[in-house]
Amino acid sequence: MTILLAAAFDAEEAAQWQACLEAALPGERWVRHREGADDIDIAVVANPPPGSLDGLSGLRLIQSLWAGVDKLLRDPTVPAGVPLARMVDPAMNTAMAETALWAVLHLHRDHDLYTVQQRERSWRQHPQRRADEVHVAVLGLGEMGRTTALRLVGNGYRVSGWSRRGAEVPGVMVAQGPEGLRRVLGEADIVINLLPLTPDTQGLFNATMLAAMRPGASLVNLARGGHVVEADLLAALDAGHLRHAVLDVFREEPLAPDHPFWAHPRVTVRPHVAAATDPRSAAQVVARNILALREGRPLAHLVDRSAGY
Amino acid sequence: MTILLAAAFDAEEAAQWQACLEAALPGERWVRHREGADDIDIAVVANPPPGSLDGLSGLRLIQSLWAGVDKLLRDPTVPAGVPLARMVDPAMNTAMAETALWAVLHLHRDHDLYTVQQRERSWRQHPQRRADEVHVAVLGLGEMGRTTALRLVGNGYRVSGWSRRGAEVPGVMVAQGPEGLRRVLGEADIVINLLPLTPDTQGLFNATMLAAMRPGASLVNLARGGHVVEADLLAALDAGHLRHAVLDVFREEPLAPDHPFWAHPRVTVRPHVAAATDPRSAAQVVARNILALREGRPLAHLVDRSAGY
Repeated sequence: MTILLAAAFDAEEAAQWQACLEAALPGERWVRHREGADDIDIAVVANPPPGSLDGLSGLRLIQSLWAGVDKLLRDPTVPAGVPLARMVDPAMNTAMAETALWAVLHLHRDHDLYTVQQRERSWRQHPQRRADEVHVAVLGLGEMGRTTALRLVGNGYRVSGWSRRGAEVPGVMVAQGPEGLRRVLGEADIVINLLPLTPDTQGLFNATMLAAMRPGASLVNLARGGHVVEADLLAALDAGHLRHAVLDVFREEPLAPDHPFWAHPRVTVRPHVAAATDPRSAAQVVARNILALREGRPLAHLVDRSAGY
Repeated sequence: MTILLAAAFDAEEAAQWQACLEAALPGERWVRHREGADDIDIAVVANPPPGSLDGLSGLRLIQSLWAGVDKLLRDPTVPAGVPLARMVDPAMNTAMAETALWAVLHLHRDHDLYTVQQRERSWRQHPQRRADEVHVAVLGLGEMGRTTALRLVGNGYRVSGWSRRGAEVPGVMVAQGPEGLRRVLGEADIVINLLPLTPDTQGLFNATMLAAMRPGASLVNLARGGHVVEADLLAALDAGHLRHAVLDVFREEPLAPDHPFWAHPRVTVRPHVAAATDPRSAAQVVARNILALREGRPLAHLVDRSAGY
């Protein structure tokens, strides 16, 4: 049997992934292209070119190397009847927690303002707050949300969380349901979005939801660009209702050179770098799932296609 | 007996400090100016105007509200025979650890590069490293250095430390002496300066020491501007030997509007905000020392004038 690695990698990335995957699964045969391989039963994918999996009738597992699978679910050529597994990489969870902590420290200790002040050569000090005076809300309490919330608690912040179905995270006040979301948004100084992108969460941060945020609060979007209605966010920033937005993801990536986010003094733009999958640890995660398939054991991190994640 | 509060505060700061100090020491008489008070036995000082304490013959304690006392020790009108106590405020130690952690995350996760890229509207991703692949050295292991080193260990970094006399910090490899300093500088990706400013450490970061740093390393100066030879640092940055400098303190503050640091793409400028004393907790620290004096118990955090801190 053969494993197809279908990914939009550059040469360097491809070499690193292939080395890690082959080392983790020494007995398997890997191909980068389906041509000539008629016994492909597993596809390991990362932004696969559309149609990559179309008509692969022997597929028994699609393993994503990325955590977000919203693009895969929107691709009609990805076979719907085949089990699809998301990446749950501990190193990626840690990377996400680091990015969230950086953004929280950045806002809490006024580095958004000081960054602008450096450009203006302005020497002005702002009052210092304690971490326990800063209320951070983490939306989405999957693996990444939990790791992030716990990291923030460990660094002294007052943390609340929200998830669709509720969850228990030690030290974190967790709300659920639409009422819970509005309450959390109304209380937090910093809102971190780590929700999956689904039909329910598409455009969640529209004018209504942004207005429900506490005046002077900041939004940190580390999930998907589709969660945010960009024009509504710009309006909330320009009106002074929101203080700042740290945005790692956008409706269209790369962000267009003429997009107003780039030069907005209240927006920090990052090029989708909050948490990359680390091939070294992720290859182990892939190997465990592939061995489980080969040995007939249950697969991990399967996507619930009706929920969208 | 009367306590003199000699400080270069603006009206708002003065009101906050006076409220906190009076609440912490309800039985004491406070004055903001020495005129008309002939029984001053304690001076609580924060950047006191030169000469503020000159000839106060009844002084038994000078309590600084700031952690650094280098300026006080250079003022010949500050009576040399009177016990001088530094501020050791747990909230200030925490604030310093937060700033150091922010700077380390900023450099580790390439936010120095991404900040420049945002100005240039450039969408480019850099390889992601794990925290345990980043070696951070903390120079100076007093209260602030220890708190900082422990915070970095808790967030997954590989941490070494250096102090003149050595010290023990759990999870931190501590070096001492000139040889130890060179070894630590040669190994660290990020060097955080938290040393006191003394005749020994004045100009420590000169061309020789900066050349001893690992190529591509970054310097984070959160201590005193006098530690750094600014021209030598600019040369090391421009030559590409050092990657970046995060500077919170400068030879002359406020930093002059035409100083090359402001617009340098490899320099992050902050207006001396790494750790402010928090009047709420610091007033308790002052109160404990003043009560100790009144009751004849030993004083805490006394400065060793021969060591300079």
